[in-house]
Amino acid sequence: MTESASKPRVGFIGLGIMGQSMAGHILAAGHPLRVYNRSPAKARGLIYKGAIGCATPAEVAASSDVIITMVGYPSDVEQVWLGPEGLIAHARQALLIDMTTSSPELARRLAAAAEQAGHMALDAPVSGGDVGAREAKLSIMAGGSQAAFDAALPILRLMGANIARLGQAGAGQHTKMSNQIVIASTMMGVCEGLAYARAAGLDASAVLQCIGGGAAGGFQLNVMGPRIVKGDFAPGFFIEHFLKDLGIALEQADQMKLPLPGLTLARQLYTELAEKGLARQGTQALFQHYVHGA
Amino acid sequence: MTESASKPRVGFIGLGIMGQSMAGHILAAGHPLRVYNRSPAKARGLIYKGAIGCATPAEVAASSDVIITMVGYPSDVEQVWLGPEGLIAHARQALLIDMTTSSPELARRLAAAAEQAGHMALDAPVSGGDVGAREAKLSIMAGGSQAAFDAALPILRLMGANIARLGQAGAGQHTKMSNQIVIASTMMGVCEGLAYARAAGLDASAVLQCIGGGAAGGFQLNVMGPRIVKGDFAPGFFIEHFLKDLGIALEQADQMKLPLPGLTLARQLYTELAEKGLARQGTQALFQHYVHGA
Repeated sequence: MTESASKPRVGFIGLGIMGQSMAGHILAAGHPLRVYNRSPAKARGLIYKGAIGCATPAEVAASSDVIITMVGYPSDVEQVWLGPEGLIAHARQALLIDMTTSSPELARRLAAAAEQAGHMALDAPVSGGDVGAREAKLSIMAGGSQAAFDAALPILRLMGANIARLGQAGAGQHTKMSNQIVIASTMMGVCEGLAYARAAGLDASAVLQCIGGGAAGGFQLNVMGPRIVKGDFAPGFFIEHFLKDLGIALEQADQMKLPLPGLTLARQLYTELAEKGLARQGTQALFQHYVHGA
Repeated sequence: MTESASKPRVGFIGLGIMGQSMAGHILAAGHPLRVYNRSPAKARGLIYKGAIGCATPAEVAASSDVIITMVGYPSDVEQVWLGPEGLIAHARQALLIDMTTSSPELARRLAAAAEQAGHMALDAPVSGGDVGAREAKLSIMAGGSQAAFDAALPILRLMGANIARLGQAGAGQHTKMSNQIVIASTMMGVCEGLAYARAAGLDASAVLQCIGGGAAGGFQLNVMGPRIVKGDFAPGFFIEHFLKDLGIALEQADQMKLPLPGLTLARQLYTELAEKGLARQGTQALFQHYVHGA
């Protein structure tokens, strides 16, 4: 891609920790960038570097060729895309990409509405956390038409290292749900194994060292395990956001009549932690369930 | 270590798939080897290669400096060590190593009895399965005195690549329990994530490819996941043996008054599978719980 004035104009809505990094890569690559965030303060850094701050999603939409949303909850996505000041009403033949982790059903509904209005749409949630966003190494799991995916790819490559199209609209969100479902019970296993080791009087670091290279090993044990052992529950990923994802996954599974008892249990334990005030700790704080009792 | 007639004489009791490989490495390293197995046919291969077949554990014990047990259940270990034809009664100042996955409490009891009779003892269960045993790359997690561990190390190195002493008698078994606890819920997460992907109409191989490199990734997802997707439920590790381990872990956790709801749930699901006749399938067959219904 050459540096030229003909680079697609990008709009970015939702400038949380991840959104700011992701939008920053797009700006750094030379795209004209318009940004919007509910609390405008979070747009300042990007505006300082050359982005154009907008007062509404509609203003972003009116002057962007590609518009990305990275907001909080499915209800936020719905509002930004479908609301009266929203993208679908105000964009002009744009490519709309939702990178929020959200509901597969909403993704299908948004894609249909977007296409009816002459836009292309993609659901493209990510995994890799704040570090992946900062280093442009996110995994990006996309759902939508091949044409929308091909059009989005040059922009997605500015943010991610492992980018795949998994199927039609909603498939990206479904894949992200599959990812979160695996993580939920895995984290439960990691916390239970380490709680057992501690209760048995073992040196938990030595146990991690010993079992991390074998059949128990993986990202959660080998990366989150040492944080648990140190008592470091700072958020890489907030429990309250994980709970949102697990809620969507369970709702979808219910609709498919697929009982997922491990996921159901993990959500229950996380809900209890959130009710105790730990919603803004990291997912590895599940360990505290086993230390302080249920 | 030089090849000489003064190499410690080793006895090996329990020649299942793993035991045969492990004993074979010891024989190949030039140790005089005595073997015993309840069904004598399984000793033939080793005897053909130069091992001496024995008719009882007592006969093994009487002429060995180091005696290893790798049998089925804690009751088998107890019988072989403490029975009238057992190791403790018949060995002569030997080093006794139990590599069976067994109860930490039994390990402590065996160590006390062995030491009282003038022997050294070690609990040293392994992880790594048939492949790890064949390639001498087992993880070996040991509990016992430093002296017993130091004495055992040259022999353990013939079988394993990652060998650690985690504490006094029972610590090896506790560490193995910690390992199995992590795996139990992790496997539940892997099976639920893949069952969800399939129910959502996704290409499960593409999903594995996409999520396996991120925060969901690990041995169970990346090695067992592809087998699940292919419908390959052949045993790397039998469900019935895993159930034994999970039972020991839960019993220990109960005694520590440590509730482990994930482990409890995983054991329940595996028990249901065993009752349906799947006890001799591999642990990844847990996936069938989600396909055929509970």
